Amino acid sequence: MKKLNVGLIGCGFMGRTHSNAHHQIAQFFDAPYKTVLRAICDVNEEKAKAFGARWGYETVETDYRKMIARKDIDLVEITTPNNTHAEIAIAAAEAGKMIICEKPLALSVEQGEKMVAAVEKAGVPNLCSYNYRRVPAVTLAKQLIDEGRLGRIFHYRANFLQDWTISTDLPQGGDALWRLDVKVAGSGVTGDLLAHCIDTALWLNGGVTEVCAMTETFIKERKHNITGKVEKVGIDDACSFMCRFKNGSLGLFESTRYARGHKALYTFEINGEHASIKWDLHDPHRLQYFDHRDQSLVRGWRSVHVTDGDMPYMGKWWVPGLTIGYAESFVHQLNDFLVNAAQGKPTAPTFRDALETQRVCERVIESGKDRAWKTV
Amino acid sequence: MKKLNVGLIGCGFMGRTHSNAHHQIAQFFDAPYKTVLRAICDVNEEKAKAFGARWGYETVETDYRKMIARKDIDLVEITTPNNTHAEIAIAAAEAGKMIICEKPLALSVEQGEKMVAAVEKAGVPNLCSYNYRRVPAVTLAKQLIDEGRLGRIFHYRANFLQDWTISTDLPQGGDALWRLDVKVAGSGVTGDLLAHCIDTALWLNGGVTEVCAMTETFIKERKHNITGKVEKVGIDDACSFMCRFKNGSLGLFESTRYARGHKALYTFEINGEHASIKWDLHDPHRLQYFDHRDQSLVRGWRSVHVTDGDMPYMGKWWVPGLTIGYAESFVHQLNDFLVNAAQGKPTAPTFRDALETQRVCERVIESGKDRAWKTV
Amino acid sequence: MKKLNVGLIGCGFMGRTHSNAHHQIAQFFDAPYKTVLRAICDVNEEKAKAFGARWGYETVETDYRKMIARKDIDLVEITTPNNTHAEIAIAAAEAGKMIICEKPLALSVEQGEKMVAAVEKAGVPNLCSYNYRRVPAVTLAKQLIDEGRLGRIFHYRANFLQDWTISTDLPQGGDALWRLDVKVAGSGVTGDLLAHCIDTALWLNGGVTEVCAMTETFIKERKHNITGKVEKVGIDDACSFMCRFKNGSLGLFESTRYARGHKALYTFEINGEHASIKWDLHDPHRLQYFDHRDQSLVRGWRSVHVTDGDMPYMGKWWVPGLTIGYAESFVHQLNDFLVNAAQGKPTAPTFRDALETQRVCERVIESGKDRAWKTV
Amino acid sequence: MKKLNVGLIGCGFMGRTHSNAHHQIAQFFDAPYKTVLRAICDVNEEKAKAFGARWGYETVETDYRKMIARKDIDLVEITTPNNTHAEIAIAAAEAGKMIICEKPLALSVEQGEKMVAAVEKAGVPNLCSYNYRRVPAVTLAKQLIDEGRLGRIFHYRANFLQDWTISTDLPQGGDALWRLDVKVAGSGVTGDLLAHCIDTALWLNGGVTEVCAMTETFIKERKHNITGKVEKVGIDDACSFMCRFKNGSLGLFESTRYARGHKALYTFEINGEHASIKWDLHDPHRLQYFDHRDQSLVRGWRSVHVTDGDMPYMGKWWVPGLTIGYAESFVHQLNDFLVNAAQGKPTAPTFRDALETQRVCERVIESGKDRAWKTV
Repeated sequence: MKKLNVGLIGCGFMGRTHSNAHHQIAQFFDAPYKTVLRAICDVNEEKAKAFGARWGYETVETDYRKMIARKDIDLVEITTPNNTHAEIAIAAAEAGKMIICEKPLALSVEQGEKMVAAVEKAGVPNLCSYNYRRVPAVTLAKQLIDEGRLGRIFHYRANFLQDWTISTDLPQGGDALWRLDVKVAGSGVTGDLLAHCIDTALWLNGGVTEVCAMTETFIKERKHNITGKVEKVGIDDACSFMCRFKNGSLGLFESTRYARGHKALYTFEINGEHASIKWDLHDPHRLQYFDHRDQSLVRGWRSVHVTDGDMPYMGKWWVPGLTIGYAESFVHQLNDFLVNAAQGKPTAPTFRDALETQRVCERVIESGKDRAWKTV
Repeated sequence: MKKLNVGLIGCGFMGRTHSNAHHQIAQFFDAPYKTVLRAICDVNEEKAKAFGARWGYETVETDYRKMIARKDIDLVEITTPNNTHAEIAIAAAEAGKMIICEKPLALSVEQGEKMVAAVEKAGVPNLCSYNYRRVPAVTLAKQLIDEGRLGRIFHYRANFLQDWTISTDLPQGGDALWRLDVKVAGSGVTGDLLAHCIDTALWLNGGVTEVCAMTETFIKERKHNITGKVEKVGIDDACSFMCRFKNGSLGLFESTRYARGHKALYTFEINGEHASIKWDLHDPHRLQYFDHRDQSLVRGWRSVHVTDGDMPYMGKWWVPGLTIGYAESFVHQLNDFLVNAAQGKPTAPTFRDALETQRVCERVIESGKDRAWKTV
Repeated sequence: MKKLNVGLIGCGFMGRTHSNAHHQIAQFFDAPYKTVLRAICDVNEEKAKAFGARWGYETVETDYRKMIARKDIDLVEITTPNNTHAEIAIAAAEAGKMIICEKPLALSVEQGEKMVAAVEKAGVPNLCSYNYRRVPAVTLAKQLIDEGRLGRIFHYRANFLQDWTISTDLPQGGDALWRLDVKVAGSGVTGDLLAHCIDTALWLNGGVTEVCAMTETFIKERKHNITGKVEKVGIDDACSFMCRFKNGSLGLFESTRYARGHKALYTFEINGEHASIKWDLHDPHRLQYFDHRDQSLVRGWRSVHVTDGDMPYMGKWWVPGLTIGYAESFVHQLNDFLVNAAQGKPTAPTFRDALETQRVCERVIESGKDRAWKTV
Repeated sequence: MKKLNVGLIGCGFMGRTHSNAHHQIAQFFDAPYKTVLRAICDVNEEKAKAFGARWGYETVETDYRKMIARKDIDLVEITTPNNTHAEIAIAAAEAGKMIICEKPLALSVEQGEKMVAAVEKAGVPNLCSYNYRRVPAVTLAKQLIDEGRLGRIFHYRANFLQDWTISTDLPQGGDALWRLDVKVAGSGVTGDLLAHCIDTALWLNGGVTEVCAMTETFIKERKHNITGKVEKVGIDDACSFMCRFKNGSLGLFESTRYARGHKALYTFEINGEHASIKWDLHDPHRLQYFDHRDQSLVRGWRSVHVTDGDMPYMGKWWVPGLTIGYAESFVHQLNDFLVNAAQGKPTAPTFRDALETQRVCERVIESGKDRAWKTV
């Protein structure tokens, strides 16, 4: 089988999920390439070396430009903080590399457009890693919708609730806390959490035409880990928005890191004329399905335990009743990417798809500031 | 409409549920009789008077014989402790009264047989108040089973778990605590709780052929409220049993008052070749239904919210989505009893039906003592 | 005990819930008045007579003015469609009657202000029947919040989802369908459903300072039952809004009658610094409570089965584990009203409290039309 | 780091779970050995080669004796059908290899005793793979019990319900269906499913003193895949048993492959004087915990989402809220085994521990046949 050399940039949480996918794929899927963990790259050399040793990368780099320049790298994976995606991805595209970039695509639509232009000009396979699309229950939701089971859609609602930044003592910036630093993250919950909700929504329910948002920063100042000073917090701690979809349905989205009791509660629900669907990341192996066409006496929300062999991706894993976890969604994503790449086909969400999510996010942030509806 | 004079004996918890049924029935159902609360009876005159005043009984008695002798009483309701059921019911039958008797029917099969003989000789309408049959979700379960949806039955399991007697300081006997006094109650959880489970099982799944039980009294001695002395506890604190049904299915039952965290968790589940059903008294308005004939991708346990107008009894109450409570099952029972009585039809569970439950309970207690299988 | 004569106007669904409260109160509570169902009133005489017969009203009226003029009426209950509340309530106030009026208070803030002025001028006890405040789990939520358990509040979210108007064949107007006729109802889901959510929110979380809403009418035309013609639908089929509370927290509300799978799913959740609370009308006897101060290894959402004797109102009903239903909330409301009236105290929500809910609803509708934030 | 060469026998479902553990361990844990997949062995050479290629085994064997004789094998893993465990394990012990053997330990107590004697004589690290002990929520349950939070234990109940053998068309024997062939499996649900329940119970609640069981074979004859003939089914399709534990608590266990609607529903619940615990394999990342010492108004079952870094094993994986799956329990097991082996310590469940489970299973099967209580 043809080998595909991987160079991964960024040694944080997402670096681990992407690396793990390479460790698991060959045993469970029949991808057309055998991926090789050729190079790990991080500006912090010590960190890169330790990460490389643990994950089995053959070489270590500290300058992404150098890594991208190497001929023995076929696929570049970008798992660095948001403010570096554009620069790295454009360089990788210009070098003709395949690219998998963590979400959100960029800091702005403007950056995103350049990235799209770059990958499309280069004609390289590209993917923005909105991994939740490939949780089997979510993929099943897409399948049920595509079969037309829901009929005309009336409502889409989603939220992504967390509670890890409630303490006023939590600093911002640096390492694990760059997500609180607006210069690095671009935004707060909008780019980090709502972006996931929006990506899924665009996929399941089509385009958004307009949005109206409310944003808030509950803790106005936090110590900055890098400067050591108490600085203004620039991110949105919470963001809600209403929207309208092209198909005439209404959307309602909310995200926050101040919802005590929720660790990573990403939920969505879609209500159609005939049927409805609900999903929840805290119990990701279940899909709730209601079908009004059931006989009235036995009509109710069905809790589908998405672990059978005929369900998306599940035939590759264990047996009915036995679950997979969060990390497996990245394995599915990688496999789909490789299968499509081998056939010259794009894998959604491409950079272009992710740009649409970026656009919605940007309008949401603007709407929050201007307190007005914004056309997408 | 014809009036029906009611004489109720016993002013405890069950006296309240039965009286409430008379207060609610006329506004929600169209029973063929207008019931009149003519007489309340309790050996404790003060209690009887207070209860009578609160619940609107027209007269008060302290001797049940006297009340039964009255010509202006048509229906006798027995809500006294278990050890008095037989005597009162037989007297009422001999006086030609209609009878509704709280469960369990009696202290023993021997007593129960005499009660059955008495009501059948007298030809009076008679009912043993196993009220859970008439919780709408349970009635719906019966309907689904009768429609043959489940196919061949393999398993029936039920339990009734409580936690209110765990403290060693709790005394036995007297008033609210007669249920812990074996002389008054006859048995512990078997007659109090398992009897409910068995009644439902016989109704939904047919007769039991043999049982094998394990019983235990965790707290061996408790102060007795009447004697004031610490006395041996004679009741079963916990009882489990395995059984076989006539239809070839296997049964598993458990009851205890030592299951920390459960207030009155009566649950049952029945597994058939094609479909299964589950119910739970803590969320009594929901029926869980699984049908294997559903398409595999959308197959799951359905949570049916039993509040629609086409569901058993629910058309009489409010609107879809709005629940009724525990007490309404007694209203349903009373209405069915009156409708059938007017037409000369029996209402299940009759004393004869309840005798079968008594028989299973008795074999269960014997099996627990002898540590051996018992034929029912 | 002092008698209190009741005159009730309107024989629909709400007429039943209010009448039922009078039938149940004396057996379960110790109110300072014995209420007497003295007169029922409906413009449809036949309906009034049948209703009066079933519910035990002593007399029948067809003109509310006549009924209000009667000296033997102490308490007027208004359960007619929304467009009649103001006129009747003002007349009742001027006649010096106590008043319980179904929600929403009125068609508009303007009407509501006149109603408030009338009852305050007359000094009569007055209550707007937002019954969900007195579901025990909701009352318990209020108690937990008042104890300060939640700390600083960050988020309040609520929705009220139904699915009964999805069919395009459903007509509008007349009898049971006046809720779809804007001239009679004033608005659609905003006044019918969101009003409940707002009332609870104002009670639990304090005042709202500004709102921004999105409204939609999915089915634009329906046959009108009274005119017999296909007419434009004037109500809002769905309404979402974002808001800010005086305490600095953010609110998100949604209501619709197009959420397939939900019958009457009123849910709310409130997230505080230390603890969070959730409730759901489909399982109304449960309160979900999360407390971050629990030890981390055993920290989780607690499902509190609100049926114990020490929980709000529950000591009056049955025993732990056994539920009450929807209708009992009206009994609680009536009892609180009578207790307070006897002591010369107001009972919340008074007309003045309900006016605040009306104001929020009106701003919400305006915001939906103008597509802009509105100050409340 | 020291290398440890692994030879694995058996290329079925369990061969995959064990192999996967070796693929994942190094990236997530810091085991004292680096395991090397040195040899795969299966009597079916083609199967062994394919499996070896997919899972990265360096060499292939078809005779387990030959593999065990190899000096370059340090750890033997046995994932073959039950009837081969004893022979292989004894040979491996005699060759001085470390051993991990799939459950159940053996076909009989007699076999098991020989296996225990062999490993203890040889002094080799040995483990019987009851993997569910190391699902984080189950490990957490053990921790809570060991802290004494539950107080005196009254009840232990567990069941393992499946529905995959209901069809009469399903054959027995050969490949994936050896679990239905009594000669190969030893028993049906008792050894396959109840063995898991018993292992967990002995671990969490201590020894069992006596059992009383009921067994059933619902489908009496099935075509045999190897002989091609319809043959009598020798396994138990369903098995329930009651038992008593040394600590005075009562046990109730049930397992079946005829519980329509359940794929692999392993649940257990333990009720103590102060607190109770529940767990369910269908939602394996949640532990239900009830503590009676909570304040009464906020007392309820807590749903603990076992994904935080301070919870057993979870600090090694992702972030709070994000789940792991079934397979990770084998990684935890392998890591514990290696850590202990390096320190010369046993890892539970050792063969001796598993022999106790075997003994309970054997008494259960005997009890089912003799219809009588059996001392363990």
